[in-house]
Amino acid sequence: MTADPLRSDFLPSWNDGAAKQAIADFLAAARGVPVVDRVAVLDNDGTLWCEKPNYPQLEFLLGELARAVGADPSLAEREEYRALIEGDTAAQSELGLERIALALIELCAGISPEEFDASVRAFFATARHRDRGVSLSAIRYQPMLELLDELRRAEFDVFIVTGGGTEFVRAIGDEFYGVAPERVLGTQASYDFVRDGDGCAGLIRNADLVAADANEGATKVVNIQRALGRRPIFAAGNSPGDSEMLDYTMAADGPTLALLVDHDDADREYRYESVAATFETTGSFLDLAAAHGWTVASIRDDWATVYAADRPDQ
Amino acid sequence: MTADPLRSDFLPSWNDGAAKQAIADFLAAARGVPVVDRVAVLDNDGTLWCEKPNYPQLEFLLGELARAVGADPSLAEREEYRALIEGDTAAQSELGLERIALALIELCAGISPEEFDASVRAFFATARHRDRGVSLSAIRYQPMLELLDELRRAEFDVFIVTGGGTEFVRAIGDEFYGVAPERVLGTQASYDFVRDGDGCAGLIRNADLVAADANEGATKVVNIQRALGRRPIFAAGNSPGDSEMLDYTMAADGPTLALLVDHDDADREYRYESVAATFETTGSFLDLAAAHGWTVASIRDDWATVYAADRPDQ
Repeated sequence: MTADPLRSDFLPSWNDGAAKQAIADFLAAARGVPVVDRVAVLDNDGTLWCEKPNYPQLEFLLGELARAVGADPSLAEREEYRALIEGDTAAQSELGLERIALALIELCAGISPEEFDASVRAFFATARHRDRGVSLSAIRYQPMLELLDELRRAEFDVFIVTGGGTEFVRAIGDEFYGVAPERVLGTQASYDFVRDGDGCAGLIRNADLVAADANEGATKVVNIQRALGRRPIFAAGNSPGDSEMLDYTMAADGPTLALLVDHDDADREYRYESVAATFETTGSFLDLAAAHGWTVASIRDDWATVYAADRPDQ
Repeated sequence: MTADPLRSDFLPSWNDGAAKQAIADFLAAARGVPVVDRVAVLDNDGTLWCEKPNYPQLEFLLGELARAVGADPSLAEREEYRALIEGDTAAQSELGLERIALALIELCAGISPEEFDASVRAFFATARHRDRGVSLSAIRYQPMLELLDELRRAEFDVFIVTGGGTEFVRAIGDEFYGVAPERVLGTQASYDFVRDGDGCAGLIRNADLVAADANEGATKVVNIQRALGRRPIFAAGNSPGDSEMLDYTMAADGPTLALLVDHDDADREYRYESVAATFETTGSFLDLAAAHGWTVASIRDDWATVYAADRPDQ
């Protein structure tokens, strides 16, 4: 299908090229799709905001760990916490990210969802990006914010499907991305229903994950069905954990677009092709995307601007 | 707080009385609540539509059972199915509703979400209420549809939180209630991620439930947090399985309303106070609601009209 000539204000932070044209063509084709089927899902870390040198959520959890160790120094002896505190990367990789992540999540057990939300908001109020010194609103990718706007202009329902913690991303979902809490699907903490001494009903986080699975890979697809009940026709991601979600989207009826953000810009962002190479054991990154029908958004070539402006009050 | 005089078109199917006034007062007070916190959750069976003499979902599953037994008569020998087919109520109550429900859910394993959705829609296209002979759109409670409209007029986000199957209610959520699929939370089937021979990605229902729990009681509250990430300030229900959700809502900050539909109208609907009596071992139904601070909507006294009109095409 031939796209309309691009509006002059269409995705201004995207350079003209195959990716921008593919998005324009897809949005034009989606006009023929019933509105109820215009569902878009986007990964967060490395897709909507920068995930280097650390995931923002890891920075938050390291802060929680420092606070907890301050209150109870014996915690520093726990293997997972020791490896983090001492920056022992050998021990960290031996323990594995999942075990370390679960140990950190335990730090947030025993509090109410409201208390957790308040601690995340307090983190975002003062957190700065480790390398750039900006607030975390300024590590959002400006081209992706423009894409979110175009999707909504085309009457898409937009969901964030993240491997990060659901409640962590929900705390900033509306302010950073215009996405309501129920439209953020991530790795989920479990809760216990409790009553206080007066019989007042509430919830307390426990140390488990719902379904014991991080929201990555095939679990992202299962959770999309559980939470949305609709198959997306647009998906964006950047890592092996997004592969199934991109393919599930491509297999929908009618026009579809699966966008893969390629971190190939060492000057303006970070270059880490190596992560993408773990998708499969053979083939280059670009060959792989072509074989799956994914559209590659090269940060170096396709994005005229990388980051959103810092918030005026920061 | 004093409510505004009621608009002449305010909840026309509700008789003037304490329940209607409590709703008016609550909606007036909610004007002072930030829009993001205007969250309403409503049970479905017995709250938004009639659940007697059978849950509509049970009628659907009995149809699926008849079809399955037609294709494979040996299925009729399975204990749970035999009890249903023969109407053996003694065996049914010995087996228990949960075991029977799980056995019925197994009938829907092995198909895609799209196939399941199609079979539910086919059921609704021809199903008639067992006693009244009307389409299932006409067993919706007209007063509750008007209440949904008033909630939305007051900028509430409205969610259905049902013990029934999520996908079953999602199939008619928009048409019956104006509620989008992702705003329906119920008891959830699990899925397996699969690829067909061409590598095309999809999902297949399996026979498990997510978290192994029906969406009843405290599980409703946990699932509200998981799916919405916000605490409701309005809730409506009608059964012991709604008790925790009503109390959780009442414990929110600011104005709250928990509405309990009382099935006390044997002439126009069904009378089944006995179910409500299982909330607690002592005290009458109305004493109990008063003790918890719930507002009772008596079908007999508060509802001028019970049912919505049948759809013109039925």
